[in-house]
Amino acid sequence: MDAAEFRRRGKEMVDYVADYLENIEKRQVYPDVEPGYLRSLIPEEAPEEAESYEDVFKDIERVIMPGVTHWHSPYFYAYFPTANSFPAMLADMLCGAIGCIGFSWAASPACTELETVMLDWLGKMLKLPEDFLAGTEGRGGGVIQGTASEATLIALLAARSKIVKLIQADHPDRSETHIISKLVAYSSDQAHSSVERAGLIGGLRMKKIPTDNKFSVRGDALQKVLEEDRATGLIPFFFCATLGTTPSCAFDCVTELGPICNAEKIWMHIDAAYAGSAFICPEFRPLLNGIEFADSFNFNPHKWLLVNFDCSAMWVKNRSDIIGAFKMEPLYLKHDHQESGNHSHWQIPLGRRFRSLKIWFVFRMYGLKGLQAYIRKHVGLAKEFESLVRADQRFEISADVVLGLVCFRLKGSNELNETLLKRINNARKIHLVPCQLAGKFVLRFAVCARTTESRHVQEAWCHISHLASDPQRDH
Amino acid sequence: MDAAEFRRRGKEMVDYVADYLENIEKRQVYPDVEPGYLRSLIPEEAPEEAESYEDVFKDIERVIMPGVTHWHSPYFYAYFPTANSFPAMLADMLCGAIGCIGFSWAASPACTELETVMLDWLGKMLKLPEDFLAGTEGRGGGVIQGTASEATLIALLAARSKIVKLIQADHPDRSETHIISKLVAYSSDQAHSSVERAGLIGGLRMKKIPTDNKFSVRGDALQKVLEEDRATGLIPFFFCATLGTTPSCAFDCVTELGPICNAEKIWMHIDAAYAGSAFICPEFRPLLNGIEFADSFNFNPHKWLLVNFDCSAMWVKNRSDIIGAFKMEPLYLKHDHQESGNHSHWQIPLGRRFRSLKIWFVFRMYGLKGLQAYIRKHVGLAKEFESLVRADQRFEISADVVLGLVCFRLKGSNELNETLLKRINNARKIHLVPCQLAGKFVLRFAVCARTTESRHVQEAWCHISHLASDPQRDH
Repeated sequence: MDAAEFRRRGKEMVDYVADYLENIEKRQVYPDVEPGYLRSLIPEEAPEEAESYEDVFKDIERVIMPGVTHWHSPYFYAYFPTANSFPAMLADMLCGAIGCIGFSWAASPACTELETVMLDWLGKMLKLPEDFLAGTEGRGGGVIQGTASEATLIALLAARSKIVKLIQADHPDRSETHIISKLVAYSSDQAHSSVERAGLIGGLRMKKIPTDNKFSVRGDALQKVLEEDRATGLIPFFFCATLGTTPSCAFDCVTELGPICNAEKIWMHIDAAYAGSAFICPEFRPLLNGIEFADSFNFNPHKWLLVNFDCSAMWVKNRSDIIGAFKMEPLYLKHDHQESGNHSHWQIPLGRRFRSLKIWFVFRMYGLKGLQAYIRKHVGLAKEFESLVRADQRFEISADVVLGLVCFRLKGSNELNETLLKRINNARKIHLVPCQLAGKFVLRFAVCARTTESRHVQEAWCHISHLASDPQRDH
Repeated sequence: MDAAEFRRRGKEMVDYVADYLENIEKRQVYPDVEPGYLRSLIPEEAPEEAESYEDVFKDIERVIMPGVTHWHSPYFYAYFPTANSFPAMLADMLCGAIGCIGFSWAASPACTELETVMLDWLGKMLKLPEDFLAGTEGRGGGVIQGTASEATLIALLAARSKIVKLIQADHPDRSETHIISKLVAYSSDQAHSSVERAGLIGGLRMKKIPTDNKFSVRGDALQKVLEEDRATGLIPFFFCATLGTTPSCAFDCVTELGPICNAEKIWMHIDAAYAGSAFICPEFRPLLNGIEFADSFNFNPHKWLLVNFDCSAMWVKNRSDIIGAFKMEPLYLKHDHQESGNHSHWQIPLGRRFRSLKIWFVFRMYGLKGLQAYIRKHVGLAKEFESLVRADQRFEISADVVLGLVCFRLKGSNELNETLLKRINNARKIHLVPCQLAGKFVLRFAVCARTTESRHVQEAWCHISHLASDPQRDH
């Protein structure tokens, strides 16, 4: 395919993409296929000879679309949202064309520098404390990670490296292995599975702190475990607070936890993967209070800030904590401006795409006000759904509705609710996933798609309410 | 921006991308900017109100392009290639529109299934042993990682988990911490920095095996270190072999190393990040001999197989080794087809884009023959450059030219060559990076861009040769 054909096919693809997104609600949100469906639809081996583009293009509808879960359908209410916007897609096209691998300043100065400045823009939108911004002389700064999982892992590893150095400074005789064997990290019992996984990867002991009746970690709960663990000779060194947990969008009490972590020299990382986007609205910013006590902070603009996946924003107060943990500098990566920023020291992969272009396009095309309006609209839709649930005596709300997630269930047994969820997902009209809250099986209704409107929420509720009228029927 | 405006702007962007790539050689390959150039060109904060697309679009040339290192310029000979092709860009547009997060089969069956089948296609193109293919009943299979760094880390962690379980099965009293403190992993002293970094991340001892005069690890070198380490009570458990090292594209002797690793129950991972693409040509496939002894194998189609970054292909013989090391299954990720493939158990991030679309488009639009022709053309250009160097008595070739990389230097001191490289890069006509080989400062000439032709290579050599005529001049 030469540039001339790309001009033609690219424009066709732009139309296909626009058609797909404009008409997405006509497609069934969750596919009917069975595992293994795709293999039989295509050859067993790659073709020897080139095929025509027509043949490839035709197969999008024949092979791919029947097996797609349409995350951007306004009938998709599962998991959490993943962002999708036209400006982000335009930026991604440019990113693909430039195709630089920004592992150092020299490998593409624009890629490194735009990222630093965009993370400062975003930090200011969130009113992060000055310490987290790079500016021209700051010690902190932001970086784009692929996912929140990677951000948590990086924070955990940086904290590990820092505590080992700190202890060895006082006790040069203690081996790294010995110190690591005594370390203990903490998170909420509601934290995302990736936090526990980060501990597994780093070979580190990880404990869960019990939450209160709002699914929130409080200061006294952490304090109690810290005392017990110190008494047995363990060394607490890391706490991952969650703002907006995956099951119920609960918020750990960072204003209580932060001072404890600071006093005990424990690295506090805040994971606000979903909720973080809302903090650009003044009315939701108090949810981030306590951030001043944190060492690192992360949230995913690729969830709820209209920047397509992947774009997970992470800030640290001291860049050197992160960089010091992983720096490697072989000759083929050295250049004249070594100290001019090198985000590959901040992450697991070495290579990186020009992802800050997406942020730049989206923030400019929406403006702060446009982004705030978008967040508020989703929260409004969740509140609307909450009212519908509350008006129906058969149902109960299972957790405070703070942002765009509603946790609800039929009053009654878990089996009843499992049956209801099965009927909902089998009907294929909308798509939901469950969670477990205090032993109860709960349905999660997350406002996800950019194009979700009140009529979709009303329709979804009608449908759920109807299916609930006799959930035992086809049990 | 609504769908109608996206149709218009998207088509403009397609033209911009085509223009950029068609005329890329007219742009200076390496930018003139100084660190910090970009911050002063844009506002300090995100705009309150939305801006027009025209303003954003104009800034691509004003703000971004002056700071871009043009990786796809035919005058770019630095690092290793990164792929860029029109079919891959079309697929990426589709990937952005579908915008699914394929962390489980249910989250998007097509995303999970196409990936499995594409990795089988690619495995067959490389003539990987059957064990590495998923097929419908295989125990092995492939997965797309972001980068080779992640693949190495995953292999290392899986090997760690496997050896701990193995030892604990015989000695249930030994703690994981104790076992880990005795473990030792190995790689070539020429291995990529990411291998050492994987050891740092996993908290694992990592040793470098000395290479022979071809920069290759041989069986006896590994055997010697293994014996020494076993004698001191260490437990060897992992060896990362490199096929096509970053400094000189050297090949570890896998046919010697593999049997040793198998006999000693050491996990052998093969990292062929750059060279792997060449193995689709029968004449280069012998370089992969010994793969039958490996537990895992990885290379980057995003380097040299026309699939845009990121797309690093990894295969394992036993999926369960990888999955077992990291599996986490909270309720919100459970679904009816739990066992139908869940690539997020195979990687560090939980979320993942629909990257297999790029492979599908590229393989079909080029065909195996087209891809082979592409590899052969690059190798031919490297050989052409090698002949030019060899014909000039002032220069020497520093390592065997096997694929698309030529390592060369002026006969004489390291200073002389450092000066030459500085003059080359300061002239901004072509871009190269150096490496260190056996204490010598060496220039690396890697054929990178898809559009590189003989005339570019001839021109590059003319230029180098001219700058070398009196390299002391402006020292």
